[in-house]
Amino acid sequence: MDAISVIRTKRDRGELSDEQIDWVIDAYTRGEVADEQMSALAMAILLNGMNRSEIARWTAAMIASGERMDFSSLSRPTADKHSTGGVGDKITLPLAPLVAACGAAVPQLSGRGLGHTGGTLDKLESVPGWRALLSNEEMLSVLDGTGAVICAAGDGLAPADKKLYALRDVTGTVEAIPLIASSIMSKKIAEGTGSLVLDVKVGTGAFMKTIDDARELARTMVGLGTDSGVRTVALLTDMSTPLGLTAGNALEVRESVEVLAGGGPADVVELTLALAREMLDAAGLKDADPARALADGSAMDVWRRMISAQGGDPDAELPVAREQHVVRAPSSGVLTRLDAYGVGVAAWRLGAGRARKEDPVQAGAGVEMHAKPGDTVTEGQPLLTLHTDTPERFDHALQAVEGSYDIEAPGTDFSATPVVLERIA
Amino acid sequence: MDAISVIRTKRDRGELSDEQIDWVIDAYTRGEVADEQMSALAMAILLNGMNRSEIARWTAAMIASGERMDFSSLSRPTADKHSTGGVGDKITLPLAPLVAACGAAVPQLSGRGLGHTGGTLDKLESVPGWRALLSNEEMLSVLDGTGAVICAAGDGLAPADKKLYALRDVTGTVEAIPLIASSIMSKKIAEGTGSLVLDVKVGTGAFMKTIDDARELARTMVGLGTDSGVRTVALLTDMSTPLGLTAGNALEVRESVEVLAGGGPADVVELTLALAREMLDAAGLKDADPARALADGSAMDVWRRMISAQGGDPDAELPVAREQHVVRAPSSGVLTRLDAYGVGVAAWRLGAGRARKEDPVQAGAGVEMHAKPGDTVTEGQPLLTLHTDTPERFDHALQAVEGSYDIEAPGTDFSATPVVLERIA
Repeated sequence: MDAISVIRTKRDRGELSDEQIDWVIDAYTRGEVADEQMSALAMAILLNGMNRSEIARWTAAMIASGERMDFSSLSRPTADKHSTGGVGDKITLPLAPLVAACGAAVPQLSGRGLGHTGGTLDKLESVPGWRALLSNEEMLSVLDGTGAVICAAGDGLAPADKKLYALRDVTGTVEAIPLIASSIMSKKIAEGTGSLVLDVKVGTGAFMKTIDDARELARTMVGLGTDSGVRTVALLTDMSTPLGLTAGNALEVRESVEVLAGGGPADVVELTLALAREMLDAAGLKDADPARALADGSAMDVWRRMISAQGGDPDAELPVAREQHVVRAPSSGVLTRLDAYGVGVAAWRLGAGRARKEDPVQAGAGVEMHAKPGDTVTEGQPLLTLHTDTPERFDHALQAVEGSYDIEAPGTDFSATPVVLERIA
Repeated sequence: MDAISVIRTKRDRGELSDEQIDWVIDAYTRGEVADEQMSALAMAILLNGMNRSEIARWTAAMIASGERMDFSSLSRPTADKHSTGGVGDKITLPLAPLVAACGAAVPQLSGRGLGHTGGTLDKLESVPGWRALLSNEEMLSVLDGTGAVICAAGDGLAPADKKLYALRDVTGTVEAIPLIASSIMSKKIAEGTGSLVLDVKVGTGAFMKTIDDARELARTMVGLGTDSGVRTVALLTDMSTPLGLTAGNALEVRESVEVLAGGGPADVVELTLALAREMLDAAGLKDADPARALADGSAMDVWRRMISAQGGDPDAELPVAREQHVVRAPSSGVLTRLDAYGVGVAAWRLGAGRARKEDPVQAGAGVEMHAKPGDTVTEGQPLLTLHTDTPERFDHALQAVEGSYDIEAPGTDFSATPVVLERIA
């Protein structure tokens, strides 16, 4: 077995054998297959594809590269959720305590943001005192005690994926559906959840720009989960415009707390409830009523206990950026477009995201939206407020915002895109 | 400009701009673009191709990465030849002195063998005392004094190609026509020859297995040469069976000297003369008569002076391998097939070639053939003699030979493949 023959097989549109896949993943993890060989293979996979059995074996080999976790000691059924990432996607924050309040155990091993989509851990780290890094024992204890935990995934889960993801990031090979699917699912399966709901984003602010690509990714992941004994469902959801009215770390925590308090923007509430119902269904808790758990404060109670259990102060003031810049509506009419990508890049440039994984983020930076597509606006009213600690970033952020929204004549017909586009099970 | 955007352009089937190509070649040579990025780009080029103007710019950028040589001080017109490599392809050895004897200056900057095709320098190093490594001044002095020089290409010519070639070798990206063409032509154009004849091999023993691929490669290289002001012609020649009756270092030198003495196998003589005529034509020496230069000993005189000028003794005994093993014809009939790849791999395994570029080669090792396709053989007669200093290699070499030849019933019709298949100018 050698790297060149594995690369050639895929390059020449052949099917990789189980032995080739097991060997190449193991040898890459051990450093015997070099980065330049794996990147050539990744490009061949991106361009020539993998079939369902190749993707399943690839995923299994990545799981086998590390440890597996076990939640069977918990008294509650586990329910996990993964989002492929979008702008203003703070859903994990209200969702995890909400589903826990309804009786499931919700382990959310999350990542940091890279590029224009924010990271759940970055958002929570704006809560004073809150710690993302837990040992396996601490994680289980928070999960057992509060019903939910959101923390950093340990280095022991699918180390092959960790190495491969970093490589794909610098070699233009991120956008391969088989590699995206196996990367996500290897971590989720190794994590040992009993059920999983996937939020696959579609639109300008998402990895998947078209519904067809999103559907293919969703079907691939649902197949992988199901084949591994994890009850898996996917929702395709809109990411042509940001979720809610905020994109940024502390800004999104504030909005999430509003949702837990029974308020918050309609689209965030709608998606949180839709995902909660799917998670509770998949976990076998069909009688739970997540809308009530939001209304009666029980979800908020879990949030407060979960934040406290990881050192955070749920009553602390959240950080606010030192400088603001208001973008005003240039005309009166109907806001017919507010582009997720443009807003995401602006928030990122303001300091909410990072260009390289070792960069710090600003807790207070981001974009606050004062109108959403379909809303009527009047000339001169605030449309967006940009937040940053470093005002020299405003110009660059404003360039991203420019051309990212359309205001059409008053009375223009507008039909809103639904939040949930499709369900795949 | 960054590596990922260049990779993405080609990955998404776009055309690389001049600026992208210039930047990526320069940045790769300087180490700013990493090996894993260049290998992903090479795979994207292999699978998605490059158009003529991209290939021309890629070649120009590789030339610009190093120094250019200048033969304009020579009184004779320069004529160069390049072969894409085959089994038993010793043609450079008789050809260079032959064309020099007819009035051209023949600079042959050559390489060592890797894999189943031998290297010209490895062959000549079996001549006691002969040195492949010359300074630029020594090279010009040998060329000026004898009319021909065969030596190692200096590190200064197209260093980007050197680095890229080593990378392609370990990443399954050798077989990309745009990259093969630009690799060959960047060195040849940087070398500064006025005319160039390309011997593009087709068949089992060659890189190009089909006439269509060979034709595309030949046309690409002729286009590149012509666009750079080098008079360039290509012959497509057969490599389904080895050239001549020997594959191995000293074995091939011996056969080459036979050709220079007016003898030698018919196919070697035919191809040597065909290439000589093309080189002399391209160099503007249309009245030269290479057949006479072989017959009257003037080519042999140049050979002796050329070998001596580089420290070799043209009268020395050539090394002979310590052990021989004879493969006999298992039946009587017509030899209808003797596969170039099988013989090449056998010679390589006997010690004539190397697996890694730092390995030594055995001067005496190789395969001697006692019959060629079309010949009648009788059961038990010697078909091949295997030569090596390390007899433990016989078994492995015999495996390569097995199934590499067919003997059909006596009287079976056999139509020989011509040596020269096509001419592209």
